[in-house]
Amino acid sequence: MAPQYAPSLRSRLAPLLLFLQIGFIVIYAFYTEIDSNVKADGTTFSSFYSDFQDVNVMVILGFGFICTFLVRYGFSGSGFNLLVAVIATQWALILNGTESWYYRGKIQINLRSLVVAEMCTASALISIGTMVGKTNPVHLIVIALLEVSGFVLNEWLLQTLLKARPVNSIMLLHIFGAFFGLMLTWILYRDESMQRFEKEKYDRKTGLFSMLGTVFLWMFWPSFNSVLLDNRIPGRKLGAVCSTYLALAVSAVTAAAVSVLSSPKGKHNLIQMQSCILAGGVAVGVSMSGIHQPWEAMTIGFAAAVVSTIGFRYLKIHMLLAFQCHETCAVMSTHGLPGLLGWLAQLVLEIKDCDDHTTAIRFAVFHICTVLITITLSLSTGIITGLLLKWNFWRPPQDKKCFDDQAFWEFPHLAVRK
Amino acid sequence: MAPQYAPSLRSRLAPLLLFLQIGFIVIYAFYTEIDSNVKADGTTFSSFYSDFQDVNVMVILGFGFICTFLVRYGFSGSGFNLLVAVIATQWALILNGTESWYYRGKIQINLRSLVVAEMCTASALISIGTMVGKTNPVHLIVIALLEVSGFVLNEWLLQTLLKARPVNSIMLLHIFGAFFGLMLTWILYRDESMQRFEKEKYDRKTGLFSMLGTVFLWMFWPSFNSVLLDNRIPGRKLGAVCSTYLALAVSAVTAAAVSVLSSPKGKHNLIQMQSCILAGGVAVGVSMSGIHQPWEAMTIGFAAAVVSTIGFRYLKIHMLLAFQCHETCAVMSTHGLPGLLGWLAQLVLEIKDCDDHTTAIRFAVFHICTVLITITLSLSTGIITGLLLKWNFWRPPQDKKCFDDQAFWEFPHLAVRK
Amino acid sequence: MAPQYAPSLRSRLAPLLLFLQIGFIVIYAFYTEIDSNVKADGTTFSSFYSDFQDVNVMVILGFGFICTFLVRYGFSGSGFNLLVAVIATQWALILNGTESWYYRGKIQINLRSLVVAEMCTASALISIGTMVGKTNPVHLIVIALLEVSGFVLNEWLLQTLLKARPVNSIMLLHIFGAFFGLMLTWILYRDESMQRFEKEKYDRKTGLFSMLGTVFLWMFWPSFNSVLLDNRIPGRKLGAVCSTYLALAVSAVTAAAVSVLSSPKGKHNLIQMQSCILAGGVAVGVSMSGIHQPWEAMTIGFAAAVVSTIGFRYLKIHMLLAFQCHETCAVMSTHGLPGLLGWLAQLVLEIKDCDDHTTAIRFAVFHICTVLITITLSLSTGIITGLLLKWNFWRPPQDKKCFDDQAFWEFPHLAVRK
Repeated sequence: MAPQYAPSLRSRLAPLLLFLQIGFIVIYAFYTEIDSNVKADGTTFSSFYSDFQDVNVMVILGFGFICTFLVRYGFSGSGFNLLVAVIATQWALILNGTESWYYRGKIQINLRSLVVAEMCTASALISIGTMVGKTNPVHLIVIALLEVSGFVLNEWLLQTLLKARPVNSIMLLHIFGAFFGLMLTWILYRDESMQRFEKEKYDRKTGLFSMLGTVFLWMFWPSFNSVLLDNRIPGRKLGAVCSTYLALAVSAVTAAAVSVLSSPKGKHNLIQMQSCILAGGVAVGVSMSGIHQPWEAMTIGFAAAVVSTIGFRYLKIHMLLAFQCHETCAVMSTHGLPGLLGWLAQLVLEIKDCDDHTTAIRFAVFHICTVLITITLSLSTGIITGLLLKWNFWRPPQDKKCFDDQAFWEFPHLAVRK
Repeated sequence: MAPQYAPSLRSRLAPLLLFLQIGFIVIYAFYTEIDSNVKADGTTFSSFYSDFQDVNVMVILGFGFICTFLVRYGFSGSGFNLLVAVIATQWALILNGTESWYYRGKIQINLRSLVVAEMCTASALISIGTMVGKTNPVHLIVIALLEVSGFVLNEWLLQTLLKARPVNSIMLLHIFGAFFGLMLTWILYRDESMQRFEKEKYDRKTGLFSMLGTVFLWMFWPSFNSVLLDNRIPGRKLGAVCSTYLALAVSAVTAAAVSVLSSPKGKHNLIQMQSCILAGGVAVGVSMSGIHQPWEAMTIGFAAAVVSTIGFRYLKIHMLLAFQCHETCAVMSTHGLPGLLGWLAQLVLEIKDCDDHTTAIRFAVFHICTVLITITLSLSTGIITGLLLKWNFWRPPQDKKCFDDQAFWEFPHLAVRK
Repeated sequence: MAPQYAPSLRSRLAPLLLFLQIGFIVIYAFYTEIDSNVKADGTTFSSFYSDFQDVNVMVILGFGFICTFLVRYGFSGSGFNLLVAVIATQWALILNGTESWYYRGKIQINLRSLVVAEMCTASALISIGTMVGKTNPVHLIVIALLEVSGFVLNEWLLQTLLKARPVNSIMLLHIFGAFFGLMLTWILYRDESMQRFEKEKYDRKTGLFSMLGTVFLWMFWPSFNSVLLDNRIPGRKLGAVCSTYLALAVSAVTAAAVSVLSSPKGKHNLIQMQSCILAGGVAVGVSMSGIHQPWEAMTIGFAAAVVSTIGFRYLKIHMLLAFQCHETCAVMSTHGLPGLLGWLAQLVLEIKDCDDHTTAIRFAVFHICTVLITITLSLSTGIITGLLLKWNFWRPPQDKKCFDDQAFWEFPHLAVRK
């Protein structure tokens, strides 16, 4: 896959970006309007706006800085994340609005549609987590566009075929993103991965930058899980916030414990902890509608952190050796496994609450179909995207330029002096 | 301009700070009170408070960390920004309240007056962006005090002479700040600028710190543009938030594309991107009242990013060679040009909406007067401030101490070991 | 105190964490529920949620990153802070709820109880500030559990014996935390402290990381001081926010001035400024209920910054030489002295407002009792905790491993190359 020529971004990236952006502006000019159906008192706007900003901070800052742990890839980690996020959000706004466009002729833009679009973006950013450092920005944009399309298609299928609730289908973003990314990294495997990339490591300072991103994700995860819930049902948002908070707290403690237990020298591993303290938030997000007691959220957080920590330590290396999947950001153990665990927890919790067998079985069938459709669709769109990106036309970076900002960023002064 | 003696801060900075601060406390003791005219339900407070915090984060963290890209100037960049910001805000609170003091005997302090004061501060921080690294903190404080005075005078002139709306006159802060700073850097030109300062460069880590500041500015810009809008008109705040968000998204994509196109090696430039992704927010902020459709905001964001990116690449070096203006933070291309573009966009949009020619011409005359007064006042107060600071009494740092924290900060342990 | 063997975390930390976490889950399963007594409109939730998030950001990000200034201790500073914070919060939720459990059988979890728990956590984190770098995580967890227990006991004593208002007794957290930490560091004194630990220093980059944490604490302090105030009394929250904001602004200016005056070379000291700009927030928080005018808050901020800055420069070294107390984070001058000053200010302000002598004397006696109980309890629980931790069973890190991440964190790649 690795070509001999040094890839220049100019002939691919600039035209693609300009084409996409002008295309978006044209589409927005004809088919969108800002939602005029707003209540006069302003309360609704204000109460939603700070939640919107929390999600925005997670997507732009959190996902951006969690990727800066790579010692020579910080500029790309944070910069390309921003670039991909804004493209994916504009695209998701259009795709999510097609139904409204079909019936009313216009796509309504409001804070809720922006939040939903950012969640689709989050799904794309999760997929990209598997490929950080081994791609150029053109790849990332293509991945983001296709991933968002697949995810919106999945949402639409679940909502029309299975009558799933919007919130529940959106919360499957962790599972969709993780399996999509897994296929990408399997198809775009490089032999170099086996003997470890030279620059795939972290140091004291970059570890702290990614800690910063992680902490923002950790702190605002209660907003992420509760933002789409209906404010009018009393206590529902409060329940989601408290459950997520407790699950995250339990995850942090459990991840620290299991991380020390599984380490050969009895030490912590910063990157492992960063991934695994978030597992509780993922699992609770997926299983939200089944949780009614604090201890349920805490137990899910505990199990998610155990699964995630063990996954980080053993799964990552086995996936590389056995299946030739090289993940940069341990997406499978941060989002994939905890997401599946959350799905399972929801199944158990909802069945426990059912009064009769028929309802329980009906729910189980529905719930299993949901996840099967999601996984199938994410695997298949992931494979298609991977095959498309295998094409040398996209000029993938050479192996020795992987995980290196210098392939994409000017370093005028460093070049001379250091 | 560069003196031989090493400037010590003690004999100038400490008395100035103590004098200012004690003076402020005395003024506040006699002439201010906390606004007692608050509605009982607390809704207004809560809905405004998170917007206030967003602006606060932009002013203190955003503007502070965007200046930390200089490799040896991070302490000063973030520390002096905080110092200058709190002095300028206290001063702006007094100046903005003089009218209320004149009529009612007391200056009312509430969240709105704090936000307005922080916006005047933002204007001063933009001016200071041109001088980062070439000044001592005493300079910065004098600049901030005079800039805020000039800006408040400009606001007052526009509102009394031309009956401009407060929000519109405040949003000219980008233009005022940029031209004020331009005059400063023209008058305080140093020959050393021509062959580039030795320490005026960035490295991997400082680039990430300034990325962090940029990202906070980028994320909270919708709050900055919408905070002063009236909550009672339904949809107005929502419109401002969505317009700013979309313009910022378009700016980010466009800045990345044009940055690659204009680079000799087809690579991105981090500092350029950091400046130019914000251009859309600036332009939309200035033209806010004319924007009614998403595509208008997006087109303005596109144009602003193109102008800003090209300005960064070519204008900065030409301004240095042709006019002997050395700007550290590319304020002209981040705030000046996009601000003027936003002004132009507002002119076009408002005229397009006018029904008859008379209204259109009247608006055009009003609008042109607005910007002419602003530019004239900012240039003249900038020149006065510059001439005042040329005086050696203020002990400017020597050329070789420019862009270096060691002139102002203790490094006890580094001194020994490194 | 320093042992010969290199301490491994596995045999102590992992069982402790798992035991605590499973214990918490069991307790939560039987004795807690999410508050179902929520108003239907959702306004209350939304208006409180962004304040809750501000406090959360301060506790997790602010306190976490303010400790990252140590050049080789950033991972531990931010990572252990998160770990300790989530354990302490879970523990504080239980302790604070015992009264409600006693009367109603269940501990109610809602946003207010989470905020109160995070404030108890803040108290523990302040104590830990004295011991940063000289402990292992097991120590930190034991400290946190005992400190929170002591603090909740103190709160309960003040509220039942003296009928103190909850807000006022919680705001004594600065005084309690500082004196508790002082006792710890006195009892756990190491001789190595006298000739300065080799790795107890900061550099350009770590200084910026801790600046980031400081700035978040500084920006959100108005939320910290106002979050527990009753929203229904008009203007009370606004007063708290404006007072805290102005006091912080004055602190920042004053700290800069006094820092330059007290420095032998007339330079700023970054770590000193970071500690002392927060002094105004601490002092105003303690004296909140007595403040009615902006100038009162500003004067308190001024005095607090002077006391804090001078304390940082001279008290820290004298406490080490005279009393063998080695504080890492200058907790006494950041929280202890400004807290006592705020207590004194409240005494003076409240007496000034009293109409007759009897009320004044009654208040003075009450107020002096409050602080005496607090200090007595914090000193005694601090001594007990210190003595418990002197036991070698906890395996304290060796002197040469102090302030070093390598004792607790894996550095796989650094090990090879650096």
